Amino acid sequence: MSTYEAKLSKDGHVYTKRDGLVGGLNTYAVIQPHRKVRSVDEDSVWEAIVIGAGYAGLVASRDLVKVGKKTLLVEARDRIGGRTWSAEVDGTTYEMGGTWVSHVHGRLFAEMQRYGLQDQVMTTRTEDGGCSYFTLDTGSGTRKFSLQEAAEMTARAWRIFINIDGNEGRGICPLPHSSLGNVRVSFDQIKAVDQLSCRDRIDQIRHLLTADELALIESLVPHCGGGSVESISFLEMIRSQALQGYSPETFEDIWTLYKVRGGQSTLARRIFDDAVKHGLQYAFETPIKSIREKDSMVSLTTVSGKIYRAQRVINTIPIAVLPTISFDPPLSPLRREALEINQVCYLTKIHAEAEGDLRGLRGCTWPGDFLYIYGDGFCAGGRSTRITSFAGDNRGVLDPLKEPERLETALQRFHPMNIKKVVFHDWVSDPYAKAGAAWYPAGFLTKYLAELQKRHGNVLMASADWAHGWRSFIEGAVEQGALAANVVMEELGVLGANPPPGTLAKI
Amino acid sequence: MSTYEAKLSKDGHVYTKRDGLVGGLNTYAVIQPHRKVRSVDEDSVWEAIVIGAGYAGLVASRDLVKVGKKTLLVEARDRIGGRTWSAEVDGTTYEMGGTWVSHVHGRLFAEMQRYGLQDQVMTTRTEDGGCSYFTLDTGSGTRKFSLQEAAEMTARAWRIFINIDGNEGRGICPLPHSSLGNVRVSFDQIKAVDQLSCRDRIDQIRHLLTADELALIESLVPHCGGGSVESISFLEMIRSQALQGYSPETFEDIWTLYKVRGGQSTLARRIFDDAVKHGLQYAFETPIKSIREKDSMVSLTTVSGKIYRAQRVINTIPIAVLPTISFDPPLSPLRREALEINQVCYLTKIHAEAEGDLRGLRGCTWPGDFLYIYGDGFCAGGRSTRITSFAGDNRGVLDPLKEPERLETALQRFHPMNIKKVVFHDWVSDPYAKAGAAWYPAGFLTKYLAELQKRHGNVLMASADWAHGWRSFIEGAVEQGALAANVVMEELGVLGANPPPGTLAKI
Repeated sequence: MSTYEAKLSKDGHVYTKRDGLVGGLNTYAVIQPHRKVRSVDEDSVWEAIVIGAGYAGLVASRDLVKVGKKTLLVEARDRIGGRTWSAEVDGTTYEMGGTWVSHVHGRLFAEMQRYGLQDQVMTTRTEDGGCSYFTLDTGSGTRKFSLQEAAEMTARAWRIFINIDGNEGRGICPLPHSSLGNVRVSFDQIKAVDQLSCRDRIDQIRHLLTADELALIESLVPHCGGGSVESISFLEMIRSQALQGYSPETFEDIWTLYKVRGGQSTLARRIFDDAVKHGLQYAFETPIKSIREKDSMVSLTTVSGKIYRAQRVINTIPIAVLPTISFDPPLSPLRREALEINQVCYLTKIHAEAEGDLRGLRGCTWPGDFLYIYGDGFCAGGRSTRITSFAGDNRGVLDPLKEPERLETALQRFHPMNIKKVVFHDWVSDPYAKAGAAWYPAGFLTKYLAELQKRHGNVLMASADWAHGWRSFIEGAVEQGALAANVVMEELGVLGANPPPGTLAKI
Repeated sequence: MSTYEAKLSKDGHVYTKRDGLVGGLNTYAVIQPHRKVRSVDEDSVWEAIVIGAGYAGLVASRDLVKVGKKTLLVEARDRIGGRTWSAEVDGTTYEMGGTWVSHVHGRLFAEMQRYGLQDQVMTTRTEDGGCSYFTLDTGSGTRKFSLQEAAEMTARAWRIFINIDGNEGRGICPLPHSSLGNVRVSFDQIKAVDQLSCRDRIDQIRHLLTADELALIESLVPHCGGGSVESISFLEMIRSQALQGYSPETFEDIWTLYKVRGGQSTLARRIFDDAVKHGLQYAFETPIKSIREKDSMVSLTTVSGKIYRAQRVINTIPIAVLPTISFDPPLSPLRREALEINQVCYLTKIHAEAEGDLRGLRGCTWPGDFLYIYGDGFCAGGRSTRITSFAGDNRGVLDPLKEPERLETALQRFHPMNIKKVVFHDWVSDPYAKAGAAWYPAGFLTKYLAELQKRHGNVLMASADWAHGWRSFIEGAVEQGALAANVVMEELGVLGANPPPGTLAKI
């Protein structure tokens, strides 16, 4: 049980046959009242304004107020967490976006240790229960495998796919936090690999795979990177391989096994509440329309026309949403080119509550509806199963916003089931996300990543979308928020434990 | 080139035939003047006193002053870094203790990112150069292998050694930061494994190994854990395996490959200088003899009789040295029992400068002198090689303090060589270390670890010696320092960006 009270957010949807599609879900992430700004500070110049209350913004805000920087957090939504939040529906917690944690995500794990949550984890999938098998349905027939058979086939296919350097990625990506060039591999070597899409790579190794292995890698890659095998850079798969320890055996444990027991929003709340305790002021439901810098002062104009001013701004707006913000002076041509190309992740994570025990269910129906589905433990009460599914790029394929009732048919290709409800967040139609976690096409990173990471005058750009290491992960957001906050501290100065100015003379 | 000036520390020794054994080495870690305490604060009650300027103490101090806590750092030595420091000798940097870094050490890597050092790394061993082979000399004959042969034999032996659960440690230690019990493995399961010494485990698998593989595992285990195979708990080897990603292939990269280009002391200096900039006051060459708490106030008495008082103390004194400190009230019987048993790491790291190119040299002469040696790149000038060697428990075997000239004979068992100088820090005879990194005997952790981690009234105990995750690593020190500082902040309160008390009424 959480000590927080779940309140209704505008975000997320639930579908039931009885009530149809209903927008808005309860979550610990909603902040009410939505605004806390002291009247004396309202029109003052803030030391820092942080745009966005996802993990990057939360960590940056918390770090800044703790050292005494007068900070305003502005957020378009009614809740914290950005692309990571958990909904509470009839006693069951659903992770609507970013989910997984591990000690290998060092900064995120440090946050969990800081707030005493390091052991408050649970495993995402459970192997016991009924229907413990893997369905592979490629449109040209359905096969069922044991979970172990499927894991072994997937591991073999992945090893062949990733092994472009004869050393399972160690040669090309020995240092995944400096994946575009480092003490061991030159930028030029990496640039050559960055020209490959995952499709290019699959074409190189296709003859080494069985038809089933090929089908598995064709669904695994877009499940990881959210786009299509054509649109995702192979280099990003190598970086993932490196971050996961170069081994399919540890891959799942590090990437997709553990989640926060009370839901991600209970961790986000701890960071937010810590920040508020230390003086953070905030305005939710406050989308920004423009950012202007003149004479070193940054002015933000909200959609409703209110202006906030600050010495420094930490902007955590995702790459897909940045083009909706007007910048003066304008963003560099190179950055605008990058925004124009954009990231490629358009998968949709959809939860279903299915009657009975389907905890062991796994599989994919791809090409088709689902890149991957898995049983994710019982729902509250223990008589129904939470099934988590990942629809491929939903723009025109399986769109739960348009045809939520189709989900039942789609899931029944795995096993006969009776679905009680469907719970999801459609990130693609969400105006403050417009896409999922950021993954990029071939050639993008070596050309644009450094530019995306650059500051724009006194606007620091901090997002998991262009993190150094765990790009597109919660960990990457924490990295970016912490580093940006540190730059602000360095530039504005922190009094710390020094005597306040003027007091030395009095001693 | 470092921007710091290397100054002479009392720590470390250099031996040359011409000058014999000389104590004291130059390092960026020396802090001069050794004391900075404002006269008004001298006899005041500090909010926090941090004992020890190793990584735990540096991080705790930096974090505390940055949020405005009036903090005094007291350190027995004339330098920062504790059991991790780098010496500068004739233009060459020697790592005298803790050395290696990796992005998998999440908190340490975050420090490197914070100070812009994430790409300022170099690899410890180089494979090129002359003498690229591995010597295995067990006293009953010498064999030479290619580096790859030796790596493969070692990996095979390690896999068999570690595989007690049929899953290479994943079963017993899925969550190495909660290695004594977690959501997947019960404390009782772990307690059973904790009864095994590494000798017990070797006896179980001895029949599966060749004589050479057995010799390699018999030297690898004490090289990792610093004691003997009899004295080191097998459970700690499983934790190491888990932290390294369960794979001998990633083991070296994570554990022993990358070091800070300018030496560890350049990283430690950045943390220290950052703390000083934010108001840290400090007293080096100030060993403590007693810690007393009365009416919630903690008093420290230095060896020279000076008393410092604080609301909270963060004590980072290593386990082997803690018994030299008098506590009032006394430490708990259980903790005293743990201190009595103590840790087991008594290996000695010894560097030699050898003429010519011996960069590829590797090997071990064990049982005997060396658990492991490796060529570690050229010394300044490029005409001699830095050879790093690890002598087993040196109390009576190879003791460079007593017989430094014997080192040349011992190293010549690997290859004919002419040694120009020997550089080392004898941690065992060092009164402020008394041992190396902390590794423990069978049965110790499940009985004492939780007790060692406990606070003693208002004295928080923060040391890598009892860290949760990377126990005995720099990463563990950073973990402990950060967590302890956070407890102090929580308990004493941090004003942060809140209006100073009394100002609200004036608005």
